[in-house]
Amino acid sequence: MSADPASAAPGIAPEEPTALDRRILFALEADRLKSVIRRTRLVDGSRHENSAEHSWHLALLAVLLGDAAPPGVDHARVLRMLLVHDVIEVDAGDTFAFDVDGYLDKDEREQAAAARLFGLLPGAQGGELRALWEEFEAGETPDARFAVAMDRFQPLLLNYHGGGGSWREHGITRAQVLRRMAPIEHGAPALWPLVLDTIDRACAEGWIAPDAG
Amino acid sequence: MSADPASAAPGIAPEEPTALDRRILFALEADRLKSVIRRTRLVDGSRHENSAEHSWHLALLAVLLGDAAPPGVDHARVLRMLLVHDVIEVDAGDTFAFDVDGYLDKDEREQAAAARLFGLLPGAQGGELRALWEEFEAGETPDARFAVAMDRFQPLLLNYHGGGGSWREHGITRAQVLRRMAPIEHGAPALWPLVLDTIDRACAEGWIAPDAG
Repeated sequence: MSADPASAAPGIAPEEPTALDRRILFALEADRLKSVIRRTRLVDGSRHENSAEHSWHLALLAVLLGDAAPPGVDHARVLRMLLVHDVIEVDAGDTFAFDVDGYLDKDEREQAAAARLFGLLPGAQGGELRALWEEFEAGETPDARFAVAMDRFQPLLLNYHGGGGSWREHGITRAQVLRRMAPIEHGAPALWPLVLDTIDRACAEGWIAPDAG
Repeated sequence: MSADPASAAPGIAPEEPTALDRRILFALEADRLKSVIRRTRLVDGSRHENSAEHSWHLALLAVLLGDAAPPGVDHARVLRMLLVHDVIEVDAGDTFAFDVDGYLDKDEREQAAAARLFGLLPGAQGGELRALWEEFEAGETPDARFAVAMDRFQPLLLNYHGGGGSWREHGITRAQVLRRMAPIEHGAPALWPLVLDTIDRACAEGWIAPDAG
């Protein structure tokens, strides 16, 4: 048994891989996303969430909450975007949303990861999926705005319904949460009143720290 | 902190939930899929896979291997189908592919789970997602055949590239694997030669047991 998919894959000849070999190699590398641990806990608090199951939960939310999207969103494209949006963490790791230092070299780490991982795929497909990831990161198109809104809304749900979760563990303040949730206001406008209400309730419970000063 | 999403959700009034409340309640229940453990191990062998990350991996494979599908497949619909295809395991648990006894009451357990879980959603949406799950289970439409093919192909990849995985752990025979993989032949015809080749190699490695007699 080997942790290196290429060496564990006698059916794949690395010298002359077919398009199918390359897709499978990408899928095997992506398997490692199941071992990238986020700060958010499951709703039952039993453990931290990994980035693979997180990606599934976001895509499921995008299906469930499709009518909270602004007009013009291509829902099938949003699902593909959400399925690949974290794959680069296989190399780059997860950066905690409230970790200022971790954000300093985040771009560099993630660009290198994207080049290597999407580069495993046949050219056109690798280009398409990398472009979807870039679009998610930029967060400017309607599709990306809705996808980013799901990525912010899901940890809010897990933290709130888990009794405070990573907010409590890390003493996160109201201002920090509001800044983190801000993309939901335009990315999934129908959710915004609930987001504000949930933050108010979490503050009242003492799960989100009051702002300093 | 509570394992019961409804009781942990002061923002959701169970007496008169809105459509949004009901969708969120479903998403919170679905979170428990991250704690449903399958027999298949991750490629690196470190632990067993859960059904949430498995669902993500299948949907990612459906994106990567889209051109292995037969003509006429609606790829966006396949993604929605794969995202919800295991949600009923939150109540019904995962039934191991090679567990004959577990299959005896599988239908009954799963129908009850589907009624409860999809019943949490607003009527039209619950009906649509339940119908997608039923269609996956029946495995007769082109969309379902391709989705089922992904569900069979992914454990083959994990078992083979993980050095035998659950085949070795449970002494699974060649005939059992061939029967399990059979839906791939028509569900994703372009993968079938690779499936047969992979099974041959796994037999040669001694990871799949020879057939009795």
